[in-house]
Amino acid sequence: MLDKTLRMNYLFDFYHSLLTLKQREYMSQYYLDDFSLGEIAEQFEVSRQAVYDNIKRTEAMLEEYENKLRLLEKFEERTRLLTQMKTAIQQNATPDEMQNLIDMIEKLD
Amino acid sequence: MLDKTLRMNYLFDFYHSLLTLKQREYMSQYYLDDFSLGEIAEQFEVSRQAVYDNIKRTEAMLEEYENKLRLLEKFEERTRLLTQMKTAIQQNATPDEMQNLIDMIEKLD
Repeated sequence: MLDKTLRMNYLFDFYHSLLTLKQREYMSQYYLDDFSLGEIAEQFEVSRQAVYDNIKRTEAMLEEYENKLRLLEKFEERTRLLTQMKTAIQQNATPDEMQNLIDMIEKLD
Repeated sequence: MLDKTLRMNYLFDFYHSLLTLKQREYMSQYYLDDFSLGEIAEQFEVSRQAVYDNIKRTEAMLEEYENKLRLLEKFEERTRLLTQMKTAIQQNATPDEMQNLIDMIEKLD
């Protein structure tokens, strides 16, 4: 399992288009720009608690989308297979070995 | 652009987990099992119009998810690149040519 911040960055990357504008703003300031809850609250003229609640709800939504669509999980698996493929190319793997890796990538979809 | 039924089958495949149970049931009977609106209506004891409206709304939702997440578009592009890769393997492509195809697949994520 990835570190929480890194995981949220990835999930945000995959699913940000499914969030509201306000959710995107809070999440991007908190996770990408590393602002504190207090700084975000001040900027949007809301309470620190309101920002906290919104971010917690958004994190849960992102995890729910990942549970349903598994985009991060498939991305990690595909990245792993593509890395194996690069190594295989450098080591002059046989066509059958290469074909095998391609089949595994295709099965991820 | 794919034929409408084929496209809806693909979109349903990618996004069915984001639909409600009733939406999934109507869509799968209409698009996968090829039941008529009347047959579905009878089975669920609702009006033909209710089934029609539900399916139209679901189709619009699926297109909206595709607009936001582009899973079908990326799948088609990845399939195209993997097919090119299979041909390249058969034709003993150079490591650079293979690496190029891998880079293009990675850029899709």
